[in-house]
Parts: sequence; structure tokens; C-alpha cells
Amino acid sequence: MRRTDLTLQDHRDLLALCDRLADAARAQTLRHFRAPGLTAETKLATGFDPVTVADRAAEAAIREILAAERPDDAILGEEYGPSPGTSGLQWVLDPIDGTRAYISGTTTWGVLIALADADGPFLGVIDQPYTQERFVGGLGVAELHGPRGTVALQARGTTALDQAILFSTFPEIGTAKERTAFQRVSQACKLTRYGMDCYAYALLAAGHIDLVIEAGLNSYDICAPIAVIEAAGGIVTDWQGGPAHDGGQVLAAANGPLHDAALKMLQSPS
Amino acid sequence: MRRTDLTLQDHRDLLALCDRLADAARAQTLRHFRAPGLTAETKLATGFDPVTVADRAAEAAIREILAAERPDDAILGEEYGPSPGTSGLQWVLDPIDGTRAYISGTTTWGVLIALADADGPFLGVIDQPYTQERFVGGLGVAELHGPRGTVALQARGTTALDQAILFSTFPEIGTAKERTAFQRVSQACKLTRYGMDCYAYALLAAGHIDLVIEAGLNSYDICAPIAVIEAAGGIVTDWQGGPAHDGGQVLAAANGPLHDAALKMLQSPS
Repeated sequence: MRRTDLTLQDHRDLLALCDRLADAARAQTLRHFRAPGLTAETKLATGFDPVTVADRAAEAAIREILAAERPDDAILGEEYGPSPGTSGLQWVLDPIDGTRAYISGTTTWGVLIALADADGPFLGVIDQPYTQERFVGGLGVAELHGPRGTVALQARGTTALDQAILFSTFPEIGTAKERTAFQRVSQACKLTRYGMDCYAYALLAAGHIDLVIEAGLNSYDICAPIAVIEAAGGIVTDWQGGPAHDGGQVLAAANGPLHDAALKMLQSPS
Repeated sequence: MRRTDLTLQDHRDLLALCDRLADAARAQTLRHFRAPGLTAETKLATGFDPVTVADRAAEAAIREILAAERPDDAILGEEYGPSPGTSGLQWVLDPIDGTRAYISGTTTWGVLIALADADGPFLGVIDQPYTQERFVGGLGVAELHGPRGTVALQARGTTALDQAILFSTFPEIGTAKERTAFQRVSQACKLTRYGMDCYAYALLAAGHIDLVIEAGLNSYDICAPIAVIEAAGGIVTDWQGGPAHDGGQVLAAANGPLHDAALKMLQSPS
């Protein structure tokens, strides 16, 4: 099954399901957010990769619903890995994108939920439980549902790099070569900000910023942002201009001309 | 007049006044936050220092209330500069701390309101209008008032640098020498995060992070954070261990031993 096989009723059902999945994850992540004594285990032997109880509980809550309602779909989740399916569709889950932000009490982490076919993600949710902001894109929808109501998501028309606001999660992005390429673009932009995790993609879809550049991503970090940004009129590729849904290097831009300009600068010899 | 001349009734009145000041600024800043076509003028000839309509409107709203209720107090505000007073007390205002975050749609900017005597700030508010979080410290109070109710602010007990979470607004902090000193501490910490503006000080007071290190601050950037953090049991000094309320280099720590450790490392020859 591909996205083009879905009926309008399927669209409505899947959008409603996404809300229930995000609600379930929201409850689990908020239970532990800013709780005293929040534990952060170290998943990798090197580096700092905290995985909280909340992270696992949120993915488990999503998987429980999917097992009941979409048993034929495959699942790829950060916490529990891949589960096979037979439908040709795959859910891609990051129950807490931005665990460093989460354990620091910052509100820039989010729950990422995407639905993909063989061509990549076509439906995505970036949910920020603490601020109650839910960015949804795909199947004809591009909306922020939040405490101030529902707002249409529309990436903006900045086409000149020197007018663009660029976000990235870490100044220590990627390898030395990747860092050099990133800094070329950064120096050409009006403003560069760090530390926003998936929230940066949401801000791009909402028309507040213009570029997000990252490296070393996993598939589950970027599938939901791709669907949300594309639904809002933006573009997400890797640093070669190809599909980004497998992770690695990512360039997200508010529109085509700006994407072209940033891509050229990422690729120009340093 | 000094803080020790204030009666308990004065304390109650001043805390209530702070709420009204923050409410007035909240209304002005939210009116323009994420509005289409938000203008960002460039205040400085070089660099990027956006000043929005909201910034000026918020300080004007605070000043209007102070003119009516505290006509004898001096005022220092980012937007309208210093106004003299005769009481010995001075209000120190930053109507939007984090204008870069503000124009990017990020929720880490805040309204800073402090009251100081000759010894420095003794009452402070860090307000985050969009999330409706108000961090208040001084005159016997150390509280977060937010959508999830009121929570006591208490800086936490991390004493080892290698267990500490450090925040700073920019990786491009200060001069080359300051950057080197900052990086010494950063490399000794468990985790370093960027981009939070005044919200980092609020997270320190709330017991979620352990250190904030900045350089090149103005007085109005740091007076409110000092009062909030000290009320929560933390310590704020400059990089020599002296008072920080005039701005410049700032080291905020959750407790004395951690402050000592970070201060030594900032000062050690590079």
C-alpha cells in the first residue's frame, strides 16, 4: 500500500489516530517532565544519551494503540527498534526528541510521530506536550493546534540567505568537514540560533524561521519534520539534495530558492 | 531607602505590584509574538539587535504603572534608559530579554523586572508570557506560578562539575579569552546547552540545571535573574566572584561548592 491508495475516509481516520497517539505520548511524557529525581541513563558507552523512563513509556503507549488499530503496519521507534509489518506502511516514532532538553526542564523537546510508505513520510506530528502545541502536516492538513486555537502552517518566503534565520541543535554539529560547511551557511545568514531540537522544524513550518541544518540524525528524528514542513510548503533534503528520511545530513528550507542557495553553499569547496 | 527599611506590608504591596507590572508587559508582548510581518529594526550599526514594537510597548506599559504608583523610584530600562528617582530604590527592566528568540517564534524569551537598592537587586521576576510561567524571587518568596499551579523554586545540590548541566545563550560568547575560559568549564560539565536567554536562569532557580555562564551582559539582563536565583538558594557573581548586577561576565550556580569549582576553572590560566 502507498499513500495514493488511501481514501478520504482513511485520511480522516489516520489524522484522528495521530491525535490519539500524540495524546497518549503527551500523558506519559508530562508525568515525568520536571519531576524531582528524573533518572537519565546513559545508553551509549561514549557521549551523553539520556533515556528516561518517560521515553520508553511514551513509545510503549503509542505502540499499544497501533497494535490494536493498525496491526499490519510496520513500526520503527527510537526506544524499541523496528517491528515488521505487511501493509507497506510504517510508523516512525521518536517518543522524546530532545532528551537533553527534557532532562534540563526546557520546553523545546517534542514527540515525533510519522507515517511513511516506500517513498518516505507523508503524515507527521510534532507535539510539544508542555506548551500544548501540536504541529500536524500531511494528507491535506498543515495546522498548529495550540492553546491559542488552530493556526495554518505556512513556511515563509525569505529567499535571500542574508535575510534568513538559521537553526541547528548543536554548534558542535557533525564532523569537522560538516562543521565547516555549516559555518559557511551560518556566516551568510542574518541570525543563527541553537538548542531547539525538533521545535526548530516546527518553527520553520509555522513561518517564523527559514532554515534548519543538522547532521548525524536518525530516521526517527526527521520523518515527522519532513511531513510537517512539506505540508507547509517547505523543502527537506539531505546535503546532496536527495531524500532525507533515512537521516544523516539534513537541510530544511522554507522555500525552493532559499533551499537552492543554502545547498550550493553547503556543497561549495571549503 | 534600603531593602531593610521595607515593612511586611511593603513586601506584600511590592510583590502584588510586580504581578501587575508583569501582567501589563505580558499583554503587550503577546500581542505581537508570532504576528505576521513582525518588524525587527536594527538598533546597532553593526550586528543584529532587533527591537520590536512589542519591546517598547511593554516597557512603556510598566513605566506607566510605576509613574502612578512608585513615582519616587528610579528606573533603568533597556528601551527608554535611566530615569532618576529619590527613594533610593531602582526598578531595572528588560521588557523582552531574548529578542532574537522572540522574532524566531521561540518561547525562551522573557520579561525581566527587578527592584534594587544600593546593594543590588533584592526582588525579581522572570516572566514567560507564552507559556504563562512566572518565576518570582525575593522578599521571602521563591515561586514559579504557572499553568500547572505554584511550585517552590529551589536550586539543586549538584556539587561536581562532571554532573552539572551548563547553559549559555551563545556558543560565540564574549571575547576569544572569555570563550576559552567558558570552554574549559563546558568541557568539564556533563552537558552544555545553548540558546535559552533568561529562561536558563529560571531553570537554574527551579532546580533543573546547575550553571549559567555568560559574558557581555547589561545590567538589565541580569538583575532579575540574580534576585530569583538567590531567593532559590543559588549564587550569582561575576567571573571574579564579585557582584554581577552591573552586567558583564556572569557566573550563576546552583550552590556554593559548584560555584567555587566553576569559578576556579574560569580563572585558571588557559
